[in-house]
Amino acid sequence: MKGVDHIGIAVRSLEEALPFYTGVLPFKLVKMETVESEQVRVAFLDAGNCKIELLEPAGEDGPVAKFLEKRGEGIHHIAFETDSIHQTIQQLTERGARMVSAEPKEGASGALVAFIHPKSAGGVLYEVCQKRKK
Amino acid sequence: MKGVDHIGIAVRSLEEALPFYTGVLPFKLVKMETVESEQVRVAFLDAGNCKIELLEPAGEDGPVAKFLEKRGEGIHHIAFETDSIHQTIQQLTERGARMVSAEPKEGASGALVAFIHPKSAGGVLYEVCQKRKK
Repeated sequence: MKGVDHIGIAVRSLEEALPFYTGVLPFKLVKMETVESEQVRVAFLDAGNCKIELLEPAGEDGPVAKFLEKRGEGIHHIAFETDSIHQTIQQLTERGARMVSAEPKEGASGALVAFIHPKSAGGVLYEVCQKRKK
Repeated sequence: MKGVDHIGIAVRSLEEALPFYTGVLPFKLVKMETVESEQVRVAFLDAGNCKIELLEPAGEDGPVAKFLEKRGEGIHHIAFETDSIHQTIQQLTERGARMVSAEPKEGASGALVAFIHPKSAGGVLYEVCQKRKK
């Protein structure tokens, strides 16, 4: 694993959240997109050594919509970058982690992503992600 | 601001949490210490481009004890590094952030730290920290 790629923050509205990140905090908006598989609209901000990913629900049944309903706005997940997601999933599983799903799926920017279940990670949702080769 | 210095994770017990971070995730334990001002015992793990700071309550009335009581274990705060905390606090305040306190206080490893109030940051507790000059 290669360090933290991004930190995901659940927000009710990207448009309402962004002024804090680009006007109070000094970060640049890098990209916005909708990730259909997660029913979420995301905005990436460049925070220097990693990114902040703001997550707005795009649908009522997605994981971010459920998170907001249960806990309100706040930090949603931490994502570590890997060069080989299949190998990382295998290693994590062998070492006792419970993955949310055994196979990675496509996340933002075409990256392959997988999540460790918070119940096997002290209540924290950790993601591992492998960026799409350019 | 110079990027993310560390991500703080509230745990009930460092001893119970550490095996996940050093045995399932591949991180190295860098340092453990008690921060009296925050009533917290911390363990720092090297996650590559930033650190993970595990936070265990050291006392019943500290902020981490209260967080655990209210929300359970999970991600507690995100800390950005700065070279000049007084200037950063002034800038954040001028731009509309509400600081938890106007003056920085001493945190882990003798760093000067200050927090933005989550109510002015979309439910997220953001810290700014200036490392002690060696």
